[in-house]
Amino acid sequence: MNTIAAARKKIPTPLIRFISQQEKQPLKQLMENIRLGRSVILKNSCHKIKKPCGIGKGLRTKVNVNIGASTERSGIKEELKKLEVAQQNGADTIMDLSVGPYTKQIRKAVLEHSQIPVGTVPIYEAVELIQRRNKTIIKMTKEQIFDVLEQQAQEGVDFFTIHAGVTKKIVKSIKLKKRLLNIVSRGGAILAQWIIANDKENPLYEYFDEVLAIAKKYDITLSLGDGLRPGSIIDASDQPQFAELKELGNLASRALKQGVQVIIEGPGHVPLHQIKKNILLEKKWCHQAPFYVLGPLVTDIACGYDHINAAIGGALASFYGADFLCYVTASEHLRLPTIKDVKEGLIAARIAAHASDIAKGIKSAYDWDRQLSLARRKRDWKKQIELSIDPEKSLSFRLSSQPQESSVCTMCGKYCSLKLSAQI
Amino acid sequence: MNTIAAARKKIPTPLIRFISQQEKQPLKQLMENIRLGRSVILKNSCHKIKKPCGIGKGLRTKVNVNIGASTERSGIKEELKKLEVAQQNGADTIMDLSVGPYTKQIRKAVLEHSQIPVGTVPIYEAVELIQRRNKTIIKMTKEQIFDVLEQQAQEGVDFFTIHAGVTKKIVKSIKLKKRLLNIVSRGGAILAQWIIANDKENPLYEYFDEVLAIAKKYDITLSLGDGLRPGSIIDASDQPQFAELKELGNLASRALKQGVQVIIEGPGHVPLHQIKKNILLEKKWCHQAPFYVLGPLVTDIACGYDHINAAIGGALASFYGADFLCYVTASEHLRLPTIKDVKEGLIAARIAAHASDIAKGIKSAYDWDRQLSLARRKRDWKKQIELSIDPEKSLSFRLSSQPQESSVCTMCGKYCSLKLSAQI
Repeated sequence: MNTIAAARKKIPTPLIRFISQQEKQPLKQLMENIRLGRSVILKNSCHKIKKPCGIGKGLRTKVNVNIGASTERSGIKEELKKLEVAQQNGADTIMDLSVGPYTKQIRKAVLEHSQIPVGTVPIYEAVELIQRRNKTIIKMTKEQIFDVLEQQAQEGVDFFTIHAGVTKKIVKSIKLKKRLLNIVSRGGAILAQWIIANDKENPLYEYFDEVLAIAKKYDITLSLGDGLRPGSIIDASDQPQFAELKELGNLASRALKQGVQVIIEGPGHVPLHQIKKNILLEKKWCHQAPFYVLGPLVTDIACGYDHINAAIGGALASFYGADFLCYVTASEHLRLPTIKDVKEGLIAARIAAHASDIAKGIKSAYDWDRQLSLARRKRDWKKQIELSIDPEKSLSFRLSSQPQESSVCTMCGKYCSLKLSAQI
Repeated sequence: MNTIAAARKKIPTPLIRFISQQEKQPLKQLMENIRLGRSVILKNSCHKIKKPCGIGKGLRTKVNVNIGASTERSGIKEELKKLEVAQQNGADTIMDLSVGPYTKQIRKAVLEHSQIPVGTVPIYEAVELIQRRNKTIIKMTKEQIFDVLEQQAQEGVDFFTIHAGVTKKIVKSIKLKKRLLNIVSRGGAILAQWIIANDKENPLYEYFDEVLAIAKKYDITLSLGDGLRPGSIIDASDQPQFAELKELGNLASRALKQGVQVIIEGPGHVPLHQIKKNILLEKKWCHQAPFYVLGPLVTDIACGYDHINAAIGGALASFYGADFLCYVTASEHLRLPTIKDVKEGLIAARIAAHASDIAKGIKSAYDWDRQLSLARRKRDWKKQIELSIDPEKSLSFRLSSQPQESSVCTMCGKYCSLKLSAQI
């Protein structure tokens, strides 16, 4: 019995019980939210992991880390190191976005070593396989795509990004010249090229029921990809973006009816004043399905610092109701991220998620801050460091600049305000 | 004739003309805002600088960089290097918060080398001088404080942080035990200690008219310090914070009547959901005087990443109407910042300010993003790097990971979405 089926019958599976305890959300409430499609639990029934992940209404905001080799860089060893760093530093989920010759090997290794849910974009492997046969992307067949889906499902992938909203109608309606940055999603661009060249409907849309059948069989959550997301704040909230979002809402309804868990992917590049509208429209059009946002990035000019850019947008998005943040690294727009970028990007996204959890009233988030500030009041440096979001970095900063008087730090020295106010 | 006097008489000084041109705000509108206390121009009439700074209504959001030695660390050479890095990377103003034996020398060197307005917290030097005579802080006299003010004014300091809102009444009303982190402002803690020990009124409050007289003489802008700001999100928006803010509103009115420019300092640690309220209350109680916020930090647990924490809060604060962001570095709460911390903290704050300027409708901000995204569309890497907020870092990332095909980057390689969509 998959998760939605269990929730409908009000029979808590061990998985539902685990998430209920972890999130301190009553079983009845969690099952109600799953039944209505407002929450999901990421876990393929074939994948053995210690930390399945609940996402949605009333739950802690989650953070995803993208890893994966490109055709230009990296391999199994480096990507496994990124997975290790991500798990050590509190990632809730991992997406392996590998393309290139080692796609399958990397995914298998990631699935084996991950204790958190693993997501993929299956179209990437389908494209890789067709290119390996020296054919162009547009020669890819529907059967090849679905073979990949079935095989990755069997291997244990917990969630799939499926760009089923990139329909022939919407792609054709894009007056490409009016958009500053046409299509910036890899999956979206691949499918748009295929649709236009073949003058055919997107197979993931046309045969969406077959996608649902595979997902249902393995209890895979579908992450409905936003292949037409804006790649510049200038393009944010435009017609193609919102046409696709509405279509994703229709697809989400179909998934829920078939008993398949679904989340919705969102932008991308969105200026601060449009974030609220974007979140509220998703909740409205997609029947309150969990919203999984990439950033959003609130400016286009922050190359080298896009993890900070995304933390600003992500904090605001999750404050307004986004449920799941995809991290962005400092290398975005410039290069494949390094291991250090992965760590720093993850921590930035976790700060954003945590800040919004405080604002959303998640008690455990508020308590964490209280504990740290209590340690700060006492100038208990050991405990402050332990409780900080990255104890390793905090400790290295402290050790690099040790004060003569151990109760203060080198920022204020003897004029430490906490010391002065303790004397009053 | 100082700036407010000129604005009242509708006679644009060269300084007012300069800011009007730089900000593309009509002279009439700028003078009206200065007259009403909604905008200020930072520049001591004795200080020769190339880049005076306008702050307030309809103007670009500005960013301040704090530098300064502590009693534990650093000296003139290192602090001048921080000044250089700050100026190279787009700081709008600099505050020299030095304490310790070299306070005066560092300030003089900073004033000499800075082309942007320089701010100080004069009470730090007053305290330093009294301690040099082997006396405790509480032995400091009113005359000693005002001697420092007069001297720093003569030297050319452009803006003073004055903690005049730390009144005897409010300090006594603090039920210290109810606050998690009593007083976290250095200046606030020093004055509170002095007030309690001497059972006397804060001299900066009692003799505020004398402060105004000095400020008026040199056209110094007063930055009314929030000595009782919250140091934990748990304490945010509490009674002492807001009592002080109201008092700052009264003092701002008195300053404006006397023809002295004034800005208001704000928190500190504020959770996301309280930021809007904090900004709107400042604007209401302080007659729309420009609001200068420290962060705000949206969580207490982000040690080692407080520049990111502050960027989240700062973006939201300036989106709601804050005019001036004080950067926070990654070293906050742990150590005196390094030169690298200064640069990264500044860029983070500039991203926050810029993101809010886009949302506020500042045309030059929007145009910058458009230009960069145009270069991105063309995959013109040289121009993308030139237009990014930190070309030096962007270039180093690009060079560290060069693709085989120069028109893409190593993130997506041959699956570059921009390349694919250009082919459609």
